[in-house]
Amino acid sequence: MKNFLLNMPTEIFFGKNQIEVLGKRLEKENVKSVLLAYGKGSIKKSGLYDKIISQLSGISVKITELPGIDPNPRISSVAKGAELCRENKVDFIIAAGAGSVIDCCKAIAAARYYSGDPWDFFIRRTSVKKALPICAILTLAATGSEMNGGCVLTNEETQEKLAMGSIRLKPKFSILDPTYTFTLPKNQTVAGIADIMSHVFEQYFSYPDAALQDYMSEAVLKTVIENAPVVVAEPENYEARANIMWAGTVALNGLLELGKDGDWATHMIEHELSAKYDITHGVGLAILTPNWMKHVLDGKNCCKFAKYGRNVWNITEKDDMKAALQAIEKTREFFNSIGLPQTLSEIGIDASKFDEMAESALKNTIVGTFKKLNKDDIVEIYRMSL
Amino acid sequence: MKNFLLNMPTEIFFGKNQIEVLGKRLEKENVKSVLLAYGKGSIKKSGLYDKIISQLSGISVKITELPGIDPNPRISSVAKGAELCRENKVDFIIAAGAGSVIDCCKAIAAARYYSGDPWDFFIRRTSVKKALPICAILTLAATGSEMNGGCVLTNEETQEKLAMGSIRLKPKFSILDPTYTFTLPKNQTVAGIADIMSHVFEQYFSYPDAALQDYMSEAVLKTVIENAPVVVAEPENYEARANIMWAGTVALNGLLELGKDGDWATHMIEHELSAKYDITHGVGLAILTPNWMKHVLDGKNCCKFAKYGRNVWNITEKDDMKAALQAIEKTREFFNSIGLPQTLSEIGIDASKFDEMAESALKNTIVGTFKKLNKDDIVEIYRMSL
Repeated sequence: MKNFLLNMPTEIFFGKNQIEVLGKRLEKENVKSVLLAYGKGSIKKSGLYDKIISQLSGISVKITELPGIDPNPRISSVAKGAELCRENKVDFIIAAGAGSVIDCCKAIAAARYYSGDPWDFFIRRTSVKKALPICAILTLAATGSEMNGGCVLTNEETQEKLAMGSIRLKPKFSILDPTYTFTLPKNQTVAGIADIMSHVFEQYFSYPDAALQDYMSEAVLKTVIENAPVVVAEPENYEARANIMWAGTVALNGLLELGKDGDWATHMIEHELSAKYDITHGVGLAILTPNWMKHVLDGKNCCKFAKYGRNVWNITEKDDMKAALQAIEKTREFFNSIGLPQTLSEIGIDASKFDEMAESALKNTIVGTFKKLNKDDIVEIYRMSL
Repeated sequence: MKNFLLNMPTEIFFGKNQIEVLGKRLEKENVKSVLLAYGKGSIKKSGLYDKIISQLSGISVKITELPGIDPNPRISSVAKGAELCRENKVDFIIAAGAGSVIDCCKAIAAARYYSGDPWDFFIRRTSVKKALPICAILTLAATGSEMNGGCVLTNEETQEKLAMGSIRLKPKFSILDPTYTFTLPKNQTVAGIADIMSHVFEQYFSYPDAALQDYMSEAVLKTVIENAPVVVAEPENYEARANIMWAGTVALNGLLELGKDGDWATHMIEHELSAKYDITHGVGLAILTPNWMKHVLDGKNCCKFAKYGRNVWNITEKDDMKAALQAIEKTREFFNSIGLPQTLSEIGIDASKFDEMAESALKNTIVGTFKKLNKDDIVEIYRMSL
């Protein structure tokens, strides 16, 4: 285990009707002017919007709205949001939605105090020195953004999708009410599940091993695998939705990566797909993950895939390589069983941009630590996914 | 899963030489006067004391020492510590040691701002309104006190050992360097291990079930069970010490109990033993735990003990009750295998105070939620442990 620093300042209010803490919690922060950001309006249909407004009207606070944030949020929304914050002297941001809304709000929170182009944060031209405080009100179990300091934005001009992070962007508090996920369309629920599992894989399949972190990763995977078919069959099953939602937070709140390096190759390769084709992140991950596993698998690391297979899928095969291959197949079958696509062709992507995307993924960075990938590796993983 | 609030403000600096952050971290808090509390002097032998002083001498800070805190810390040390804090305008407490030192410092931190008897916090005559900030520098993996807001103190006059807690008592930061546990005597190492496992049992065997929290509990148990024999055989095995140390923190930093009730009967029954006989807490827990399990086991809850047996001990028995009994036996054998006593007789305790201790445990409180225990139950568990 490597040395680590753990810092989890985000308070989590988890469960039914926790929205009722919002007004008092903002009063505690002495908030005077909020930016309320959300997506395409599902929070209006579900009634969450009204609940938020009701909480805010109970305290004397100015409300500025930023609706319409895209599923793969655009850097252009960030500049707009930052300007709104400056104009309205916003001192707190409420991000009500899925990871896209939360990520966009984090970038806005940082851009509020930066006079240059917000994309500078993502190309490492600057770092976050100061940021507005945020709360996330989560409506989709997927990104873990509700309890970490990371965000991923798309630059529509350059067709890049990049991540940045800072401890200053960790939400002050987040409200996680599993009932808000009851009305999600099935395709969003399962894409979120793939995202959660991919977050775990990126940390589990990385060096060095760390006993508790790896067992905890298996705990998250088992929880998701057992509860995913339940939420697909019974979208309003509270316990299953709660288990998936909490698993999504733990999957990326830092606990699983403590003392480890993280791989993140599959995420970096997927970001190219969603930047170029605007596909759902979790769908891209579900397609790529089994192929990444198969491509990087070798005689040295097969023991880790075998461990995954035995501890998560109850595979009894004694030979590590055989167990590893079975585990990878189980992963593919699972994604398929909950209704996720298995190939890029199914979602209308052909091989025409594979070279370009592989080059773009490698621009200014290393892809993969569990196994470092070069351009040929990445193209091969795309090709296996066709 | 019940609704929950998660709040983890404690920063953790984990790993080799993390003591080097101490000076700078205190400077960041603008600390001017510290109380440095420790136990019977093992930190002087190990060199940790010198490292702390070296860090403190690098910043302009007044140092007041409180040495000699007992293993089952006494409420009388609290009054003394609080007085030292007032006299020396202490604005930060450094607790360098095991849980006993950290717990004592938490009580001091609260008592500093309370003019009455510090025992009032423990008998619920008052609550913590304000407290000095604390950092813990951990030397024994056991209590989890380094990342939670609880503390347990002994009142030598009344022979009571009681717990209290507050979010205000969570350490500001803690330094966890596994090398500080290299020189621990074996009996302390294994008592700490029993304490860690007991913390997990108290949360795992409780209602309602919570999928991820229960799998994470199993993760902690597996980590401890696999690494315990290693640290016993090779006390300077860094990786094993690190795994045990981090498991000890996760076992009681709140994560495993989220949305659950917690049982805590075994702890409450044990506190009577250490209050009356001044035995090591972890030793008492190791003796009582398998007997608590056997006593509360019934046809309704045997599935949970069976789950524990199958997931943690790889028991393949299909019948729940048989699997449960095997799991309990495995638990007893494990404690025995690492050198912990199995009976109260071995540590010189007879049946003479069983009635008195059972009555005292039940004074003003309920004992057990997984199964509520009455006086006869408690006496029977003591008797089974003879």
